[in-house]
Amino acid sequence: MNAYPSKLVERAVEQLSTLPGVGRKTALRLALHLLSRPPIDTHTFADALVEMRDGIVYCRQCYNISDTELCPICSSPQRDSSTVCVVQHVGDVMAIENTGQYRGVYHVLGGVISPIDGIGPDDLKIPELIERVRSGSVREVILALGTTMEGDTTNFFIYRSLAGLDVRLSVIARGVAIGDEIEYADEVTLGRSILTRTDFDQSLSF
Amino acid sequence: MNAYPSKLVERAVEQLSTLPGVGRKTALRLALHLLSRPPIDTHTFADALVEMRDGIVYCRQCYNISDTELCPICSSPQRDSSTVCVVQHVGDVMAIENTGQYRGVYHVLGGVISPIDGIGPDDLKIPELIERVRSGSVREVILALGTTMEGDTTNFFIYRSLAGLDVRLSVIARGVAIGDEIEYADEVTLGRSILTRTDFDQSLSF
Repeated sequence: MNAYPSKLVERAVEQLSTLPGVGRKTALRLALHLLSRPPIDTHTFADALVEMRDGIVYCRQCYNISDTELCPICSSPQRDSSTVCVVQHVGDVMAIENTGQYRGVYHVLGGVISPIDGIGPDDLKIPELIERVRSGSVREVILALGTTMEGDTTNFFIYRSLAGLDVRLSVIARGVAIGDEIEYADEVTLGRSILTRTDFDQSLSF
Repeated sequence: MNAYPSKLVERAVEQLSTLPGVGRKTALRLALHLLSRPPIDTHTFADALVEMRDGIVYCRQCYNISDTELCPICSSPQRDSSTVCVVQHVGDVMAIENTGQYRGVYHVLGGVISPIDGIGPDDLKIPELIERVRSGSVREVILALGTTMEGDTTNFFIYRSLAGLDVRLSVIARGVAIGDEIEYADEVTLGRSILTRTDFDQSLSF
């Protein structure tokens, strides 16, 4: 697509194609879709995005996005606030919440340590995590970061930072996904799933 | 995804998922992407869409989107204004323009006749097309609508409306796409491509 019939459309396409997974062709389709709908729809659409971006609040305890100073998870008396699951992003919280398997609380780091990108512990909510554990009521920290080199580095940094504190540090299980065929599992995952095998009678309890 | 951590995010996701091809999962990914960027980016993004929607002008001759009263194609002296290609949507104009094979002008109907959806000729730019041909300078009208029942109905309606006027009415060629294997072509297309075969010496000129 080289010639846009209008500068306004061209600018809209440029902006739409900044979205992840949206190329210029899709962006054009989206722009034409907006043009095919009444102007009020585009206003509602744009307002919702701007209001979200400007109005968003981060929970002062777990740094998840929230509408209130303390998020619904942190403020719920039904949640076990002594178990803290450490994740990279807000989306990870929602993914874990959707499993319905977790009753603890969270701590959203906002990323992982990445020297190449100039991201150190202080650019993330790591000092806040240490402080949160140090202040007392946390009994277990579950690490649920990505299995990249940066994720491993971050795990190790947290492990070192929490050394000497009276807290259990665990990591979510990595293994062959439920429903997957063993023969098609990648070697690293399969290897890890053998090393970190669980007692059979434990697996029965699920 | 059932529980959003914030009403603002939920509303943004709702709006994003009104876009074609965007489900709630993708919409959430887009919303989180916007949250990960500075607020000014979301403002620029939203402004571009609203400015496009509010500022868009349709060419008074061909009804293509435009920044000016007469679009660049209609106002270009290099274009053959006696040949008018009739299309459904603005996107069709861009697709044909990108082939670099057409030097005529366009007429954007804005859709096709569809009694089921309550769309008649007067809801489209069909009266304007008839008037444009009747006013004189058009020598050929090329129909480039979709091959649906509605497209066929619209083609026939235009054919009837132009009857008696001194104008050639043609339809773009339908056939097996270049590069496609004959054995995999669908029967209707293949059948049509045999019925509307062209002289071999004509095909050499491309």
